[in-house]
Amino acid sequence: MDTTLARGLKDVVLDTTESSFIDGEAGILLYRGYSIHDLAAKSSFLEVCYLLLHGDLPNVKELEDFTNRLTSYRTLPPEVIEVIRLTKDAHPIDVLRTAVSAVATFDPDVTLDTSDPVGSRESNVRKSERLTAQFPTMVAAHHRIRQGLDPVAPRSDLSHAANFLYMLEGKEPSPEAVSAMDLDFLLHAEHGANASAFAARVTASALSDMHSSIVSAIGTLKGPAHGGAAEAVQKMTSEIGTAGKAHDYIRAKLDRKERIMGFGHRVYKAEDPRARHMRDRAKSLGEKTGHSEWYEILIAVEKEMVPYQSRGIFVNVDFYAGAVYALLGLPEDLFIPIFAVGRIPGWCVEILEQYDNNILIRPLLDYTGPKSLEYTPVEQR
Amino acid sequence: MDTTLARGLKDVVLDTTESSFIDGEAGILLYRGYSIHDLAAKSSFLEVCYLLLHGDLPNVKELEDFTNRLTSYRTLPPEVIEVIRLTKDAHPIDVLRTAVSAVATFDPDVTLDTSDPVGSRESNVRKSERLTAQFPTMVAAHHRIRQGLDPVAPRSDLSHAANFLYMLEGKEPSPEAVSAMDLDFLLHAEHGANASAFAARVTASALSDMHSSIVSAIGTLKGPAHGGAAEAVQKMTSEIGTAGKAHDYIRAKLDRKERIMGFGHRVYKAEDPRARHMRDRAKSLGEKTGHSEWYEILIAVEKEMVPYQSRGIFVNVDFYAGAVYALLGLPEDLFIPIFAVGRIPGWCVEILEQYDNNILIRPLLDYTGPKSLEYTPVEQR
Repeated sequence: MDTTLARGLKDVVLDTTESSFIDGEAGILLYRGYSIHDLAAKSSFLEVCYLLLHGDLPNVKELEDFTNRLTSYRTLPPEVIEVIRLTKDAHPIDVLRTAVSAVATFDPDVTLDTSDPVGSRESNVRKSERLTAQFPTMVAAHHRIRQGLDPVAPRSDLSHAANFLYMLEGKEPSPEAVSAMDLDFLLHAEHGANASAFAARVTASALSDMHSSIVSAIGTLKGPAHGGAAEAVQKMTSEIGTAGKAHDYIRAKLDRKERIMGFGHRVYKAEDPRARHMRDRAKSLGEKTGHSEWYEILIAVEKEMVPYQSRGIFVNVDFYAGAVYALLGLPEDLFIPIFAVGRIPGWCVEILEQYDNNILIRPLLDYTGPKSLEYTPVEQR
Repeated sequence: MDTTLARGLKDVVLDTTESSFIDGEAGILLYRGYSIHDLAAKSSFLEVCYLLLHGDLPNVKELEDFTNRLTSYRTLPPEVIEVIRLTKDAHPIDVLRTAVSAVATFDPDVTLDTSDPVGSRESNVRKSERLTAQFPTMVAAHHRIRQGLDPVAPRSDLSHAANFLYMLEGKEPSPEAVSAMDLDFLLHAEHGANASAFAARVTASALSDMHSSIVSAIGTLKGPAHGGAAEAVQKMTSEIGTAGKAHDYIRAKLDRKERIMGFGHRVYKAEDPRARHMRDRAKSLGEKTGHSEWYEILIAVEKEMVPYQSRGIFVNVDFYAGAVYALLGLPEDLFIPIFAVGRIPGWCVEILEQYDNNILIRPLLDYTGPKSLEYTPVEQR
C-alpha cells in the first residue's frame, strides 16, 4: 500500500471530463470548448445549460423547446411548498437542501427500485432540467414565506433570470437587473471537480440517484471554504465603508495574518477569468443605481492586494459577485442559494459524466491509533 | 501536473484516522484499537457509540449519562413528523435523508451564521448524539405513517435497539430480536472512508455543518454499490427458494457473468470479520423462528463460492445481514435505513476527524474535449 498521504486530494486527478476546462496558471475557463468570455458576452444562462446538459449549443428550435420545457417545470408540488413552510426558520441554503431532497418524492422519473435508482441517461437529463427549473422557485418561495408573505407563482412569460427576481420581489425587475442575474448564473454554471461537484460525484459513484447527489452538492456548497465567499466579501465591504478606508483596513487584516476574502483560489493562480465580467457589472449597476461606493471600495481593496499577485493570489469571481447581488437588492443570506441556482447544470453534468463511466469513489485512510487494546467489562473501568 | 488518473481513488490514502483500522488482507477490523470480535461478543451498540464519539470505552457513570442523554433525544419535533408525512411515498432512505435535512432547523446547536456553520467540537458531539438518537425514530415514524398508522412514541424504558423495534411494530420485541438488532448496529457502526463516510468528509471539508455532511452520507449509502447489498442478497435468497437449488442458480448466474451479491469488497480480500457474527445470528434466529431455510440457502451459496476465495472474493457482512433483518420481520426497503441507523456514529466521528485537521477536499479532472470552439449566434446553427 502506498502510504503517501494525498490530503485534500490537491494534485490527484480523479477522472476525465468534457464539461469544462480550467487552466489555472493562464486564467482560462472553457465550457465544452467555448471560451467563458465569448459565452459571457454573447450567450445566455439557458443556452449554456443546454450546452452543458446536451453536449453542444442549441439551434433555434432546440433552444425554444428547451426553454419551454424548463418554463413548464417551474411550479413546485404543494407538498414541497409545505416542507419549505415547516423549515422556514433554517438558513436559506438548508431550506434548499431539504426542498430538493423532498421534491424527489414527486419527480416522475424517481424510482422506488433501490437496485437501480440511477435509471436511464434520458431520465437523468429530464431530472436535471426539472431541478434547474425548480431551484429558483424553491429559493424565492422560502424568501417570501419567511417574510410572512405568500410565495409568488412563476410567470411563464418571463425569462429564467427575470422570473427568479420577479418571484423574489413580487414585481418585474429592470432589464439591467435581469441581465446581471443571467450573467451571474452563466459564470457560475460549471467549474470542474470543485468540492460540491465532487461530493455529487462521490454520491453518484455509489450508483445513488440524481437527487441524492445534488443534495450532497448543496450541503457542500454551504461551507464557507466553498460557497460562502461572496457573502464574506460583501460583509467586508460593508465594514470598510468607504474606499478611502480600504488601505488601513486591509493592512490591519494582513498584519493580523487574516485572509482577505475573494482572493486566491485552489485552482487559479492568475486572475479568475470570471472576475472581470462581475467587475464590469458591479461598476455599471453601481452607476445605474447611484451606489458606486461598493465598486470603489472593491477596486481600492484590489489595488492593495496587487503585491500578492507574484505569489499567485488574484481576485476570484466571488470578489465582485457579492457587490452585484447587493446592488440587485438581494439579502446576504441568499448569496449561497443564488450560487446554487447558477451551479445546478454543472452539478448535473458532472453526475451524468460519473454515471457514464462509473467507478465507486472510495479512498483509504491510514490508521494511526493503537492496535491491540484489551476489552474490559464496564464495571472494571 | 501529474496526469496519472486515480479513478475511484482506489489506492489513494486520503488522511490519517484513529477511528477504525481495517486490514483487508488479514480480515481484521478494530474500532479505536478494540477488536470487532471482542466488541461483538461483550459490548453493546451504545457503548461502541460512546467509544467512537468520545474516544474510549465509558465507565459505568459515563455510560449511564450517555444512555440517558440519547434516550432524552429520541422524540422528534412535530414539524419533522409532518415533513415525513408529506414525503411518505418516497423510498424510506429518501425520507430519512429529507428528515435529517429538516431536523437541522430545530437542532439547538445549528447556527444561521454561514461564516462558521461548523461551530465548536462540543456542539458537534452534541449534534452527533442527537442524530444517533433521532435516526431510529425517523425510520420508524415513516414506516408507521406509510401504513396509515400513527407513529409510535419512543419509550424511555427500552434500550436503543429495543425501542427501535418497538416503534416499528408497536409491540415489545423478543430478547433475541433486540440482541440481534443491537449486534447488527454495532457491526455497522464504523468502517473508515467508505463512500458514504467519504462523502460526509468532502462536505465537512468545505467547512459545512454536521447535518449537511450526514445528509451527503445518507444519499450516498442509498447507492446499490454501497448500502444496497443486504437487500439484493435477500432478493436472491427468495429467488433461490430452497438450499437444493442454490448450485444451479449460482452456476447459471456465474455463466451469465453476473455478480453474486454479498461477495467481494473493495477493501477485504479475506472474509469480512463482521460476517461470522451475522452468520451465527442468521442460524440462531432461523432456529428460534422456525425459518432455517434462508440460513441453509446462504450456506449453500457460500459453498458454491469457495473456489473464488483464491481470487480474494469472500463473503461480506451484507451477505447474512439481509437474512437477519428478514427473520426479524423487517421489510426489504428498510434494510438501507437500518444500515444508516447503525452507521451514524461512524459518520459523525469521520466528520469530527475531518474538522479536527481540515483541508478542503478537491481533486482535479483531466479535460479531454476540444479547446477552441468558435461561438456562433443561435440563428446560424
